[in-house]
Formats: sequence, C-alpha cells, structure tokens
Amino acid sequence: MTSKPFTIGVFDSGFGGLTVLRELLDLIPNARFTYLGDTARLPYGSKSRTTIARYAVSSTNFLLREGADLLVIACNTATALALNEIRAAAGFVPVLGVIEPGAHAAFAANPAGSVVVLATAATVQSNAYSRTLDLLGIRSTEKACPLLVPLVEEGWTAHPVTAEVARIYLTEALMKAPDATTLLLGCTHYPVLKPLLHTVLEQMHRPLHIIDSARATAEAVLARLPAVPPLAAEAQPLAVFATDSVEKFQQLGSRFLGHPLPLVTLVDLGG
Amino acid sequence: MTSKPFTIGVFDSGFGGLTVLRELLDLIPNARFTYLGDTARLPYGSKSRTTIARYAVSSTNFLLREGADLLVIACNTATALALNEIRAAAGFVPVLGVIEPGAHAAFAANPAGSVVVLATAATVQSNAYSRTLDLLGIRSTEKACPLLVPLVEEGWTAHPVTAEVARIYLTEALMKAPDATTLLLGCTHYPVLKPLLHTVLEQMHRPLHIIDSARATAEAVLARLPAVPPLAAEAQPLAVFATDSVEKFQQLGSRFLGHPLPLVTLVDLGG
Repeated sequence: MTSKPFTIGVFDSGFGGLTVLRELLDLIPNARFTYLGDTARLPYGSKSRTTIARYAVSSTNFLLREGADLLVIACNTATALALNEIRAAAGFVPVLGVIEPGAHAAFAANPAGSVVVLATAATVQSNAYSRTLDLLGIRSTEKACPLLVPLVEEGWTAHPVTAEVARIYLTEALMKAPDATTLLLGCTHYPVLKPLLHTVLEQMHRPLHIIDSARATAEAVLARLPAVPPLAAEAQPLAVFATDSVEKFQQLGSRFLGHPLPLVTLVDLGG
Repeated sequence: MTSKPFTIGVFDSGFGGLTVLRELLDLIPNARFTYLGDTARLPYGSKSRTTIARYAVSSTNFLLREGADLLVIACNTATALALNEIRAAAGFVPVLGVIEPGAHAAFAANPAGSVVVLATAATVQSNAYSRTLDLLGIRSTEKACPLLVPLVEEGWTAHPVTAEVARIYLTEALMKAPDATTLLLGCTHYPVLKPLLHTVLEQMHRPLHIIDSARATAEAVLARLPAVPPLAAEAQPLAVFATDSVEKFQQLGSRFLGHPLPLVTLVDLGG
C-alpha cells in the first residue's frame, strides 16, 4: 500500500496562478497538486480588503478539505490583503504567498537597484510590496494597472492597444522612479505579457530587468518541502477546480499553464 | 398618517444601472427608489448563466426585503440571462428588464433599419437582443466588447486608447453588418461613452443613430405604474446599497448618476 501523496494546494482568483503552477510542476515533480480558480468572484484586484479576505478564506478552506499539506497563494491581491486571515484559517498547514519570493528575486537580481512594481489597484493600495522591499533596503514605486488583466483575458497579449496601455502605465511609473533598474510583475496575470513589456521598454530606451514571482515562489516552496517520495504510478498529479464556467477555464487556462489542462471540475463555494 | 410610498427597486451588478436610475428619477419624481449595486461579485458579463442567475436572484431578493413594489433590472447581462429566475423569485411584484425597452427604442428610431448591438460577452452569447429584435422584424448583429467596461471603470471615457478599442470593435461589427443604421448600447456602462462613440463613428464615415435603453426603460416603467401620490416631504427619495467598498461606489457612481449620490450603505449578501 502506498502512503497518501504530499499535496500542494494552489489558489488564485482565476487563471493567473497557473503561471505559478507551471513552475511548481516543473520544479517539484513528486508532489500532487490541487488548483482552485475562484472565477465566479474574480477579479479580486478591484475589490475591498474585507471582501477579498472573505473570498480567499473560503477558497483556501476548500483546498484544505481537499487534503492540502501546504498552501500556495498564487494571487498577489490575496497575498497582499488576506495572508494573515488565510494563515489563521490554515492552522498548522504552511501557507506561502507570492510577494516575499517576488521581492527577494528583485533583490537578488540587483541588490542596489530601484524597483517599479506593476500590480492591481488593491495590491498597490495595500503597499505590501513596498513594505517588503523596504525591509530588504530596496527603493520601490508601485503602479496600479487595472486594464492589464482584462487585456490579457481578451487574449490581446501582443496587441498594439496593450502596448499603448503598457506604455502609458510605464511612463507614469518611471516619471516617479527615474532611476529604476528593475520591473517586478506584481500580478500572476502579467508573465504572459513579458515579451510585450520587453519591447515597450526597449522602445522607451529603458531596458529594465523584468522579474516575475512565479519561479521564485516555486523555489521558496521547494525549500520548505520535506523529502517527498515519488508519486505512485497510478496517482493523479494534478486536479483543477473552478467556481465558474469550466469550459472557459479549460480554454484560457492552457495559455497560462503552457500546456493543456486536465478536465476542470466545477465547485460551488456559495455566494 | 401618510401611506407607505411606492418603492421601485433598481438592480445592477455595479455602477452602470445608475444611468437608468438617472432617467427614472427624472421621469418618476413621486416614487421612492432603492438601488443595489452587487459590486462584490461584478462583473457579471464574463460569467456563466448559472452563476449570473444565482447572483441576480440573491440581489433582487434583497430589494424585495427592502419593500420594492416593482423591480427594474438595470443590467443587460442579468436581464439577458436571469429574467425568468428573477420573475419566479419576485412572485407578484412586476419585474422590468432593459432589453425589451432598448429593442423597442431601436425599432421606433428606424423600423426599417438594421441594428448593431454592443454588449458584454455573456449578453451576446445569450442572443437575447437578436431574439427580441427578430420579433420586431429588425435585423441585428451582436458584438461582444469585453474591454469597454474596464475602460469606463478606469475613467478613460474620452481617452485615445478607448477610441482605438471602440474603432476595432465597431470595424469588426460593421464588417458583418455593412447596411447597419442604428447602434444599440446593450450594456448600462456604455451611455457614458456616447460622445466618444459618436466621434469614432464620424471618423469611420458611419454616422449611425446611437440608442441606449436607459430612457426607454424609464418610460416603460412609467407606463406600468399606478397613479403614485407625491412623496411625503420627510420621505427619503433614494437609498443606495452596494455589496463592496462604498467609498469607491460613492466616488465612481456620481459619474453615472450625473450628480452626487446619497450616502451608500454596505450590505453583505454572502459569498
């Protein structure tokens, strides 16, 4: 008889967290993964702290019921505004967010640098990134980019309109941070925009180093893991749940995960 | 002793319905209004029928508990996907949506015309507009415009990026409907874009007649009303509720209502 596999629960308000899951699957092949996208209540990024915390706790409770031994909050907004509430709900199960790993990756890339953080309105209002970067001695400027998530969800990841919107946001941010060296993507939707952001920054003659927290988060999870035995041959390595339309999730999700998703299961968290 | 004032409950997923409330306040000064914006769960337009119906019914139940004698569903997506469910929940209280009045207004403007409908993805997928216009003998083409709501909420109502997005959507729609005469705004967020849409259509040399359903809906409500006695001097003519951040609602809402809102009350509908 094989023992229960070590299960990592990964949570996001929608698809974006699949960019983190992608790195986790690559780095930690022995674990079993359970992913939940709270698509019925997305986006979190434009909502209040109270509402975000309520949604995030009910979502992580679902992953705990599904047997998660460790939780990854693969959503910057939920990490920024609800990490304490989620940790309280999780008890002895360790909880890792994306903000600390992202901030450490920006520090590692350039310890003497100055960072511009692009994120949702709620993440920026929380100042979670600037507080974390401050502790590392890094200067930072945060910029809310409410249109980038809808543009990514429209599939306009290489579209001139998205480039123009990015140019407007980056110009505003760089006016406040003329000496910036590093661009930190503070939303798990944004990694699919990396090629476009590179091009726009080049056109602006501001070739910043672009960092996202997906790889850094996967590395932080690996560092926290006990020795995990290989999965049994018959074990399902990945189960994916969403709170709204699974067809849409199936379709859009593969763009973020980088390969096709297993069958997505609909789950009702109320509301 | 004065009798209970006649109360009209107005519901939207967010701010857009305030464009309908504005016309109702103007046309029906004797009624009392209760408005609910379900901002904790917006946007509805990108979600599934089941989820939209669940949210719409819990929202209208709130307005019924608040004493609504008539309900106005000032949200195209909820009207398109959940009108039957809402009517079942409302029992003897009459329920009016925005789609029939909008379609009739398009017909009245040009009975021999051909209509392009701009709306959310969910409204377009429901084909509610084309079915209603078909019954009136009007040809129509529906076009999903997922970026217009986020652009309006960003406040970019007269911005070159919004003009470019509108031009892209209109070009795609008009390729399928080269003989279109009328543009029907099938989302209550869009009336604030009317001046921009006029300019873009002029630049495209396609001066379509632009119709929104706000005024037509208010007129349909007036036609259904019993004789309503004037409000008592001490009566509150308008109460506004939202399910998320009332500060943001207060701030953004006045743009849609055309004048400042009364104090917005936070309400928790679960979820």
